[in-house]
Amino acid sequence: MFKDNEAMRTNLSELGEFGLIDHLTKSFEPKISSTVKAIGDDAAVMDFQSKQTLVTTDLLIEGVHFDLAYMPLKHLGYKAVMVNLSDVYAMNGTATQITVSVAVSNRFPVEALEELYAGIDLASKLYNIDVVGGDTTSSTSGLLISVTALGVAEKEDVVYRDGAKSNELLVVTGDLGAAYMGLQILEREKQVFKANPNSQPDLDKYTYLIERQLKPEARKDIPPLLKKLGVKPTSMIDISDGLSSEVIHLCKNSQLGVNLYEDKIPLDPAVINVCEEFELDSTTIALSGGEDYELLFTITQDDFEKIKGNPNLTVIGHMAEENEGMHLITRANTKIPLIARGWNAMNADDEESEEKKD
Amino acid sequence: MFKDNEAMRTNLSELGEFGLIDHLTKSFEPKISSTVKAIGDDAAVMDFQSKQTLVTTDLLIEGVHFDLAYMPLKHLGYKAVMVNLSDVYAMNGTATQITVSVAVSNRFPVEALEELYAGIDLASKLYNIDVVGGDTTSSTSGLLISVTALGVAEKEDVVYRDGAKSNELLVVTGDLGAAYMGLQILEREKQVFKANPNSQPDLDKYTYLIERQLKPEARKDIPPLLKKLGVKPTSMIDISDGLSSEVIHLCKNSQLGVNLYEDKIPLDPAVINVCEEFELDSTTIALSGGEDYELLFTITQDDFEKIKGNPNLTVIGHMAEENEGMHLITRANTKIPLIARGWNAMNADDEESEEKKD
Repeated sequence: MFKDNEAMRTNLSELGEFGLIDHLTKSFEPKISSTVKAIGDDAAVMDFQSKQTLVTTDLLIEGVHFDLAYMPLKHLGYKAVMVNLSDVYAMNGTATQITVSVAVSNRFPVEALEELYAGIDLASKLYNIDVVGGDTTSSTSGLLISVTALGVAEKEDVVYRDGAKSNELLVVTGDLGAAYMGLQILEREKQVFKANPNSQPDLDKYTYLIERQLKPEARKDIPPLLKKLGVKPTSMIDISDGLSSEVIHLCKNSQLGVNLYEDKIPLDPAVINVCEEFELDSTTIALSGGEDYELLFTITQDDFEKIKGNPNLTVIGHMAEENEGMHLITRANTKIPLIARGWNAMNADDEESEEKKD
Repeated sequence: MFKDNEAMRTNLSELGEFGLIDHLTKSFEPKISSTVKAIGDDAAVMDFQSKQTLVTTDLLIEGVHFDLAYMPLKHLGYKAVMVNLSDVYAMNGTATQITVSVAVSNRFPVEALEELYAGIDLASKLYNIDVVGGDTTSSTSGLLISVTALGVAEKEDVVYRDGAKSNELLVVTGDLGAAYMGLQILEREKQVFKANPNSQPDLDKYTYLIERQLKPEARKDIPPLLKKLGVKPTSMIDISDGLSSEVIHLCKNSQLGVNLYEDKIPLDPAVINVCEEFELDSTTIALSGGEDYELLFTITQDDFEKIKGNPNLTVIGHMAEENEGMHLITRANTKIPLIARGWNAMNADDEESEEKKD
């Protein structure tokens, strides 16, 4: 986990700023048919035929979004891609290309950036996307990654946040809360490591949680699965900030209320166990944890039979009229108002935050 | 010039990270017909019909690419957009949308970011593009802007860097070297201001140079002008790093040599004057200055009559066979090898740098 990156050190200045981007991307071969020209001109050129074009961007900053004490650079590169692809899948689209800009201070050797780009390359191979552009520049402090993802979808397939109707079913993919608890484990181990650098942490039983934090997978499989099942969601969003804030977004965008059932929220047993260990409420973690990169969507009641029993999909509630409000129905069958608390806010005070970046 | 930004200070935390992006972009109304969905969903959606899609991205970092001591934030926002649009025009395309991500430390009040976004907004209005997405996040130090621009072009109109042929004419738009000399003026005034904060600089005679540095304009007019003249360039690139490095790029991408004529390089009289004042050689400045955001392209000899006499376009040389090499023909009619020195390298040593980011 706490890898020694000091083994080889080629100073960034040995390659120069312009030589660096060439060095890092020279093995990137375009493989998608819509990529006409990738890296190597003023702009990349794509031919999406008659399809609609999707674009989304995210910025990851050292000390704000990641801590290199426990985030290996290869994982970071991989995750930076996932965070963006997830937004394309949340439109029911296919991700096709990315651009990657990196700002880096001189404390990083070339080998560190090679690791970062190895993660980006791995993600692009597994998710069948091309890296078509980018920028590498020096930074006065720390590491920063800005990724922009492009994708496509047939016009009739695009799913927005605002199409849900009252009484429709609220569905979530996968399970929730694991990424946040993975972060708690890593933070704890960092403190242990600081106190005793020779300690050998036994993290085997936390493997799933740590992987969800360090190497999340975007739900590339969901748009084709839904197509195969003959289901078009009426609204969709990706879960980056925690279930409750995303549910609230769907409600606000569609001008609806919701009833969300606590006992339906999908939790991995590892989350339940580690929440007990940390004396945290697993429902709270699922609602506010964030970084799960699952998809949340609504379907008509008629489509229920089509998704019933699918292990990837869980119905967790139903939409209601706006004036009925947004509620969580607890296991004890009490109805409490749903509030949004992003994962950044969890360790802070109780301040309500109902906005979300795009 | 040295504006007092301390007049109003709303702390960033008063709006919160998610509230901030909403606040900054709430007045941004989509106006381009290809924008189907701008800000407000997981990804923006565009419909480019059968046109090809162009994408390019650039990162600007405080202390590396700009100095807020003399760069007003509104100008910075404007320039961050221009830098990207220039790359789209260099493909002979039309810029259509941008995404803007900003990382900012707490030392900036909300009003500072409003200034930055006012510049972005002004650029988007004047250049007829939509801001369709972005991200605002905290930074551990300084200000950083990452812009990605999208554009379109008919397949048959796209111009790459590799299409030039021997004997074709090398053409440049506008004039060169002014942005670099504007920077020299600003750097000098910064030193004067440090020594005596009450000094009132008289910068009137440097207006053109300073504007070229602080508020560059991308050559949106050139692709339609060329279309109107019935000229399709055989290769094209934008001049961000200085004429010589861009000429070398066209040569290398097209596997050609070049003869560039010193006496043809277009210089504004203000550049000539200020170069004398600074005891700098104006040809060197034009060749290596950078940040001009003009376009450099090649045309067939047959097209010369079509562009002849156009005040926007200057023939500065002609392409040659690769084995003839890349040369500058001086006013004294001597032939010297063309070497690339980016503007960053100018104040450093003589190290050769022939690479360029995309």
